Amino acid sequence: MNEATLDRIVREVVSRIQPKQDFEVEASGRHVHLDRQTINELFGEGYQLTKAKDLSQPGQFACKERITLVGPKGTLHNVIILGPERRQSQVEISGTDALALGIKVPVRESGDIAGTPGILLLNNNRTVHLHEGLIVAKRHVHMTVEDASAAKVVQGEIVQVRIDGGRALIFDEVVIRVSPKFATYMHIDYDEANACGFAKGTRGSIIKKVQDDA
Amino acid sequence: MNEATLDRIVREVVSRIQPKQDFEVEASGRHVHLDRQTINELFGEGYQLTKAKDLSQPGQFACKERITLVGPKGTLHNVIILGPERRQSQVEISGTDALALGIKVPVRESGDIAGTPGILLLNNNRTVHLHEGLIVAKRHVHMTVEDASAAKVVQGEIVQVRIDGGRALIFDEVVIRVSPKFATYMHIDYDEANACGFAKGTRGSIIKKVQDDA
Repeated sequence: MNEATLDRIVREVVSRIQPKQDFEVEASGRHVHLDRQTINELFGEGYQLTKAKDLSQPGQFACKERITLVGPKGTLHNVIILGPERRQSQVEISGTDALALGIKVPVRESGDIAGTPGILLLNNNRTVHLHEGLIVAKRHVHMTVEDASAAKVVQGEIVQVRIDGGRALIFDEVVIRVSPKFATYMHIDYDEANACGFAKGTRGSIIKKVQDDA
Repeated sequence: MNEATLDRIVREVVSRIQPKQDFEVEASGRHVHLDRQTINELFGEGYQLTKAKDLSQPGQFACKERITLVGPKGTLHNVIILGPERRQSQVEISGTDALALGIKVPVRESGDIAGTPGILLLNNNRTVHLHEGLIVAKRHVHMTVEDASAAKVVQGEIVQVRIDGGRALIFDEVVIRVSPKFATYMHIDYDEANACGFAKGTRGSIIKKVQDDA
């Protein structure tokens, strides 16, 4: 038996033992994605963000640089910047954070920032006032093309995801996002993490939506 | 038609229009229940707590008095005391609060505090170290006997509760608590409230558990 055949058999066995619609869950803390203009204004013309740590999504990384978010009622210090730089700046916080800042923030998919509130960013004595881009991220599952196919879900599909454990729940309205550039992980925020008893290693599994299951 | 008949018809019509397994959800902030000894030590011998506001559960009330919770990593000020006094002191916080205090806190039903962590309570310069009683409250539905009967659930039963809206989810492992002393309301904490997009007026509805619905 050659190596390729062996590999194919092993992958097939693994996929049958551990169905692909079961995946690791990650809790995303508050973070900021910056565009080139905002980086220039906050850190200086042409400044390059410093990679501190790779994230689970290929090519994405946490930066060494931190900034401050200033709202009418409160301030969040030491907020992490995620790289690489993006076409549009976007700030992702939890509902708890929104309350602390004193801003009403909608739940949105990443990138869907039209009409969202702005926020003041602060780095030492440099400030940038983003006119929009402050969101609570809509929970979602990043999936590889293979895993989406195995789970019989497609890009943009809305599913339920079951989280087992001591504070078990089923997240409804979970967006499936499929790309060859993704690794398969579910992302929730810290409010959701606390609500479902999340700990490192917590796994989720897809329940396909049905028309009416009440 | 006499008054009793009219009342019976009205109740029957209302119950058919608005099924009884649909109920209002309330988000409970962090709070403290105190026993007599702890009140004596924090406020002085024989001190009587001052009612500030009735709560939805009959006989339960928010007090004017506030205290401080002191943990190894952080402090929570201005924490509300709920009356009347209880047989055992108990402190209910969210997972977010637990992180702020720096204490690992289990999810427990109210009253089930054996083996839970302690916490330092502070009122001005008086302190009490509770040796146990710090919990994250397990989500639950208080139900009147009539509403439980209409929803075909019993005391202690574990059900799922669906929350609709922009951040819809289904809470699993929800405890039904039935008493003639209760009013029918679901109680969740602020982490759960943020996770399900709670706003005043949010309603939940029971889904009976089935053996295996995956």
